[in-house]
Amino acid sequence: MPRYRVTLEYDGTPFVGWQVQAAGASVQGRLAEAIAKFCGETADVRGAGRTDAGVHALGQVAHFDLARDWPTDTVRAAVNFHLKPDPIAVLDCAVASSDFDARFSAVGRHYRYRILARPAPPVIDRDRVWWVPQPLDAAAMQEAAQALVGRHDFTTFRAAGCQAKSPVKTLDRLAVRTDGDEIVIEASARSFLHNQVRSMVGSLKMVGDGKWPVPGMAAALAAKDRAACGPVAPARGLYLMQVDYPADIDAR
Amino acid sequence: MPRYRVTLEYDGTPFVGWQVQAAGASVQGRLAEAIAKFCGETADVRGAGRTDAGVHALGQVAHFDLARDWPTDTVRAAVNFHLKPDPIAVLDCAVASSDFDARFSAVGRHYRYRILARPAPPVIDRDRVWWVPQPLDAAAMQEAAQALVGRHDFTTFRAAGCQAKSPVKTLDRLAVRTDGDEIVIEASARSFLHNQVRSMVGSLKMVGDGKWPVPGMAAALAAKDRAACGPVAPARGLYLMQVDYPADIDAR
Repeated sequence: MPRYRVTLEYDGTPFVGWQVQAAGASVQGRLAEAIAKFCGETADVRGAGRTDAGVHALGQVAHFDLARDWPTDTVRAAVNFHLKPDPIAVLDCAVASSDFDARFSAVGRHYRYRILARPAPPVIDRDRVWWVPQPLDAAAMQEAAQALVGRHDFTTFRAAGCQAKSPVKTLDRLAVRTDGDEIVIEASARSFLHNQVRSMVGSLKMVGDGKWPVPGMAAALAAKDRAACGPVAPARGLYLMQVDYPADIDAR
Repeated sequence: MPRYRVTLEYDGTPFVGWQVQAAGASVQGRLAEAIAKFCGETADVRGAGRTDAGVHALGQVAHFDLARDWPTDTVRAAVNFHLKPDPIAVLDCAVASSDFDARFSAVGRHYRYRILARPAPPVIDRDRVWWVPQPLDAAAMQEAAQALVGRHDFTTFRAAGCQAKSPVKTLDRLAVRTDGDEIVIEASARSFLHNQVRSMVGSLKMVGDGKWPVPGMAAALAAKDRAACGPVAPARGLYLMQVDYPADIDAR
């Protein structure tokens, strides 16, 4: 029973999130439906990251098993055909070893957050960026962000409903740069707490518009208190960019 | 009677194009309606480029006159408010001299065309790129493109209905580069013939996928025959990026 590993792009706007919910269309559910239409099998699709409603992906990874050994190009093309018109695409399909698990084998996750800082609202990138009508000080945001890099108790930046056993995580990278009218924030870690990226971005925005001083970010982290977090940034600016796996994991 | 110059961003997907038509929503028409809602005046809005249905703009320029001398930030914010939910935004508003004309004062126009060359269809950038499922040879396209740069009779790359008096234009730049899975083509000229960019891109794509040899582009130009043009590229990949004016034109 071959295991397939797929890399996925999706527009999170119309979905309740990655995970199947009691009501509403989920990316996981739509993908399973497209697989069923293609080959008649009911696949258990597991993703690397359970993105929230409205969060996008350019490089989500998932795995599932099928009884039959299909050419991977056939799986990609057939699932893409049956996904239409949902805004989900299989970018790549490969056969993985039976011990590959999209979630538990992952050793790195990379997210991007896009803020559009200009007086006029976004139209080309509507639902793709967080619109902030005032200028933001990206240099101050970048400086403040460095206080979060490393191994810390991220209780401040964790959603109330987060199910992780420990609030201690190692943040490998948190970089803030400008790109035209945009502020682009990139975050990398082995894993993140629920809402961690959006919580960090919401707090960085407080630094960017001068409501917090640069050391306010370190103080918020040290507080280990959800109440010390800035307003959580909206889902529409967040992208799951890439998931890393050990080089040898795909050997069949 | 002050003249206002506005820089516009729009998603061309839901519009019949820039220009008011007998039926359907146009960017020009929606803009005039938003101005009327804001100040009660019927403005004659003139644009630098009459983009076709589905063509986008990140930097279209237009002008109009109003009886009253409004603060330019008020015009921008009020028109943007009344444009909602149409995907049109006024990025910038300035007062221009009475002899400024968005179309006739322009001395340069810059377009970008985005091709997504990968097996999976676009979802994040649906309606924003031309999807070509096979790889394209960008280096061959760049080489072929150089045959079009300069002053030429562009009859081959001109729509049947083009109303320009002469097919002779000077193409200042036609550059092809890759950006991840995308092929990005940038074209600059004082002015273009109707459908010229999409006609050139459609022919470059023939070179990119090997249907034409590199010298085929020069041969198509030399033919001065619309029948020698490749299939015209779709509107959804085209963006009017910027319009240039003489430095002194805005002096009031």
